[in-house]
Amino acid sequence: MRNKETITDWFKNLQDEICLSLEKLDGASKFKEDNWTRQEGGGGRSRVILNGGLIEKGGVNFSAVHGTLPEKIQKALGFSESTFYATGVSIVLHPKNPWVPIIHMNVRYFETESINNNQSTYWFGGGIDLTPHYVDSSSGQFIHQSLKRVCDDASPDYYPRFKKWADDYFYIKHRNETRGVGGIFYDHLNEKKEGLSFAQLWSFQQNVGQSFIPIYTHYANQSRDKAYTDENLHWQKMRRGRYVEFNLVWDRGTKFGLDTNGRTESILMSMPPQANWEYDHQPAEGTAEAESLKWLKKDLNWIDNA
Amino acid sequence: MRNKETITDWFKNLQDEICLSLEKLDGASKFKEDNWTRQEGGGGRSRVILNGGLIEKGGVNFSAVHGTLPEKIQKALGFSESTFYATGVSIVLHPKNPWVPIIHMNVRYFETESINNNQSTYWFGGGIDLTPHYVDSSSGQFIHQSLKRVCDDASPDYYPRFKKWADDYFYIKHRNETRGVGGIFYDHLNEKKEGLSFAQLWSFQQNVGQSFIPIYTHYANQSRDKAYTDENLHWQKMRRGRYVEFNLVWDRGTKFGLDTNGRTESILMSMPPQANWEYDHQPAEGTAEAESLKWLKKDLNWIDNA
Repeated sequence: MRNKETITDWFKNLQDEICLSLEKLDGASKFKEDNWTRQEGGGGRSRVILNGGLIEKGGVNFSAVHGTLPEKIQKALGFSESTFYATGVSIVLHPKNPWVPIIHMNVRYFETESINNNQSTYWFGGGIDLTPHYVDSSSGQFIHQSLKRVCDDASPDYYPRFKKWADDYFYIKHRNETRGVGGIFYDHLNEKKEGLSFAQLWSFQQNVGQSFIPIYTHYANQSRDKAYTDENLHWQKMRRGRYVEFNLVWDRGTKFGLDTNGRTESILMSMPPQANWEYDHQPAEGTAEAESLKWLKKDLNWIDNA
Repeated sequence: MRNKETITDWFKNLQDEICLSLEKLDGASKFKEDNWTRQEGGGGRSRVILNGGLIEKGGVNFSAVHGTLPEKIQKALGFSESTFYATGVSIVLHPKNPWVPIIHMNVRYFETESINNNQSTYWFGGGIDLTPHYVDSSSGQFIHQSLKRVCDDASPDYYPRFKKWADDYFYIKHRNETRGVGGIFYDHLNEKKEGLSFAQLWSFQQNVGQSFIPIYTHYANQSRDKAYTDENLHWQKMRRGRYVEFNLVWDRGTKFGLDTNGRTESILMSMPPQANWEYDHQPAEGTAEAESLKWLKKDLNWIDNA
């Protein structure tokens, strides 16, 4: 039933579908592809889109890597010497228009097999979250409604659990701010832990992957033609600075990748084209910028309070 | 002999002297000061200079904080319950002209006292390093000559030891690049470990602090009037991106500060006003940009090979 080749092919196909849809949505630019191989085993297909009609800089990456589990991770997981296989799709899109949000998705599959005793384990992990430069009470409604539907199809406790997990994960501790309006985050999902069959979990994972385009299309079309000022562009660059801070200081995936000799250019495709920092920048009371900061909190109910 | 008030006052005075000298050198802008207090004990004086004739964004921070040593650090150091006192000056300057290098200095003093048995320990730490946006064979000569003189006054093994320490510390592992031409870095210097008296170590620390202005003045005056193009400015922003990557991913001081509820705005004064990222950016063969990358290596002899 569980077959890593099938999962890998599905992810690869998801990358293709998402890239085609994004090129249509963007209307002006196309993805460029870099195929890379990893010395220790496997490789990936990194795709980047630049200076488009909608997307200023975006990456949609597929990878499938394998090898011997690094000793550090073996120990952290309490495993004996093991091989691993990891595959998934990662996306970060930085839009041109400051009224369109930054979006991120990652869906991944991981399995290990012990070299001595053939014991194996696997899990799914992933998440989608939205980072509007400008936030108001309604910014999180559509993404949370969409993700709740996907979660409810799998288990009634998934949405509340994974929504809270995202609030806790996408949190910029040193700023006391969430990265945006959140979404869902999950990890280590397998039959043993979840009481769902492999088929049910795999179906959930596929539904998360398929939800990306409808969610982003909604937000892109809602704001892509909205006029913006230099002040809006300035604020966008300040918020991109926060995105950089989260990804480089707190994001476990980024840290793990950079620390274990991952492909730097693929990992750092999440970086914005430009980010600004100003000492102790505080937007003036009553502005849309000041209002936005008020919504960067955990535990908000975006669905009902919009 | 060793007196934390004397050390603190000296650092405070160093901040004053450096700020005055930098305002004179800049010629167009002045520092703005923020006084802050730390709930758990102590505080600081953060000073920022913006949009000057020479400096686009710079910070010269003094702090003196005290309290109970966090349990994590107690354990890492093998200490029992202890109080600590930490004071120092930190500087990062981002120049307007891409031909002028970024410079960083930190000089600090740390002491702890065990609550149960009055056992105490102390150490000095610090460093200066230079990050030219454009590097050639001569870029590191003046700073290394200056720092070698300061080191040689204290001990003949200090320059080679602390130069290598800087090469290893100011290293962007995921880029396989040094942050710049290096300088010196040292930590945990005290009588027991170094076989020098407290007075000798303190004198070394003061000499490092005093070397900052002559070093930066040399580099600033060398290039501040050199004409630059849009392409030079573009490269500066790409290199500032690398500076952000080092500080947020690898710099232990930054990570420690952000992780232990330090004053975020003071810690992140090191961020550039603007940084850019491009996917897999490679300067063309034979350009000054491509040449610069070739010099971002450890273990270069900047003094003799210029």
